[in-house]
Amino acid sequence: MTAKTLDVVGIGNAIVDVLVQTEEAFLDNHALTKGTMALVDEAQAERLYGSLGPGLETSGGSAANTLAGIAQLGSRAGFIGRVRDDQLGEIFAHDIRSVGARFETPAATSGASTARCLILVTPDAQRTMCTYLGASVGLDPADLDLEMVAQAQMLYLEGYLWDSDDAKKAFIAAAEVARAHGGEVALSLSDAFCVERHRDSFLELVDGHVDVLFANEMEITALYQANSFEEAADQVRGRCKVAALTRSEQGSVVLSGEETIVVPPYVLGALVDTTGAGDLYAAGFLHGYTRGDSLERCGQLGSLCAGLVVTQLGPRPQASLQELVATHLG
Amino acid sequence: MTAKTLDVVGIGNAIVDVLVQTEEAFLDNHALTKGTMALVDEAQAERLYGSLGPGLETSGGSAANTLAGIAQLGSRAGFIGRVRDDQLGEIFAHDIRSVGARFETPAATSGASTARCLILVTPDAQRTMCTYLGASVGLDPADLDLEMVAQAQMLYLEGYLWDSDDAKKAFIAAAEVARAHGGEVALSLSDAFCVERHRDSFLELVDGHVDVLFANEMEITALYQANSFEEAADQVRGRCKVAALTRSEQGSVVLSGEETIVVPPYVLGALVDTTGAGDLYAAGFLHGYTRGDSLERCGQLGSLCAGLVVTQLGPRPQASLQELVATHLG
Repeated sequence: MTAKTLDVVGIGNAIVDVLVQTEEAFLDNHALTKGTMALVDEAQAERLYGSLGPGLETSGGSAANTLAGIAQLGSRAGFIGRVRDDQLGEIFAHDIRSVGARFETPAATSGASTARCLILVTPDAQRTMCTYLGASVGLDPADLDLEMVAQAQMLYLEGYLWDSDDAKKAFIAAAEVARAHGGEVALSLSDAFCVERHRDSFLELVDGHVDVLFANEMEITALYQANSFEEAADQVRGRCKVAALTRSEQGSVVLSGEETIVVPPYVLGALVDTTGAGDLYAAGFLHGYTRGDSLERCGQLGSLCAGLVVTQLGPRPQASLQELVATHLG
Repeated sequence: MTAKTLDVVGIGNAIVDVLVQTEEAFLDNHALTKGTMALVDEAQAERLYGSLGPGLETSGGSAANTLAGIAQLGSRAGFIGRVRDDQLGEIFAHDIRSVGARFETPAATSGASTARCLILVTPDAQRTMCTYLGASVGLDPADLDLEMVAQAQMLYLEGYLWDSDDAKKAFIAAAEVARAHGGEVALSLSDAFCVERHRDSFLELVDGHVDVLFANEMEITALYQANSFEEAADQVRGRCKVAALTRSEQGSVVLSGEETIVVPPYVLGALVDTTGAGDLYAAGFLHGYTRGDSLERCGQLGSLCAGLVVTQLGPRPQASLQELVATHLG
């Protein structure tokens, strides 16, 4: 195994977010479940967008947010995902490259447009997402830069990829390449509904192929159909090397072997928008993990980055993550 | 003259903003003058964008921001400006319609893409703009919905339109229609460099065709090549019905005949980004003006809306302007 040239490479849906501040009633009127992600087709996306107020556009995508965060923290990051050669695709590519992440997946030259996620932010700062996957669905094994995957110390995969058959295959192929080259594999469960849709796949993956698992309380209890967080935590313990379980305002719990590390949350200002909280937790955690930090410090780095992103609108931190870490964790 | 069905109709460049937080040094390295607007061609825009960090995209355009604000305040607003039939054009159209403003200018089906403005926000919250006018330049008299103009109590024009010959002609034609139908005409001087480029035109306009003039301190002193704000204010007095002159943290001064009304600023939170401050001042002012409010209250409404928009990133208020007015001005 040669020395790695990248710390983390992520595979995910390449998405541009449309953030819209919305009243609670809008969710009810459109049968949307707060805090979750629903898939919509292009026509549904258009209809919903037409009934929403003005938006703010920003690059998004769960794994892409994580990799952008890792790059901002100073680690060597790469991202694999598919946009179309349209204006939103250009925005996505610019934003992730401009923070120093490698992004070389060729843009599709025909077919569906770049993926969009309508993110409805309610006054309680919760986000509810409706995603049109567009061009990102077309990511297939042929698009995968396996050379980049082989160069990575850690391969990071988002559970959302399971919603596309092509992407899922690409995902598993990549995990095999990463392992074959001595890399580790991290998985984020992404969303409780996503877990419901793909439980068997995820259970199998966690048992055999994942080193580091990220999940929030809803996702981990959904995965094991558990009645409580504690029950779910007992279930996952020992099935992968590390499980980092986030619990919103209760911080997070990191499990590794018999070890249990409880990490308090960081409150850095008024809660504005929870979009990207999980993604930035994973960014901080993996930045520390690939540098060989203790699991406690990895959890603290995750908490800190998540604590920052929830004080602003949108999933990509507008303030410097490196300064944040220097200030709070030295 | 029949009863008006619209309070304010604006004509301006239809622009999508790309907001990027930038260090001071970037301005120096790219020979940009802080606080001003520079025009760039597509290649320059691409080069500059490539060297910038991640952005946040939002609908912009000076007059468009004003009309969106007027609609959010509850007045009947319309906007005339030209986008291309591309993704940024769709975003622009959605955002202005979604706040209740009429926007019916047909999107161009060929030619340059929708206008973009790269807005560099420095740590002192000042914004420096580089605009690629794209499709907005192509606004010509044939695109003008003169019926909409005739229905307006007030026609609002942005000085930036003078940078395009076609738009300028459209602008003057519209002012004549407005006047012929008993409407008034308001003009914003937009930018000190814009005033330098078109001083003679603006001087002639102000003397003969403008009822309400909006300008900041730099713009009004540039217009009259005055040595001080006081000298410029003396020059403009009496040349139009009302001159509303904004002075950043010193609030604004409204001149009408012999009357001088000094309006204090509203400080509603930490200063984040001055983008849209002048646009929202005009929105508040014209909302009051077309309802027949006193000039003092018009100035207060302007100050209040400007005071809100500078506490957030971007030129379109994310909080409710109607609630803001209810809270502060009853």
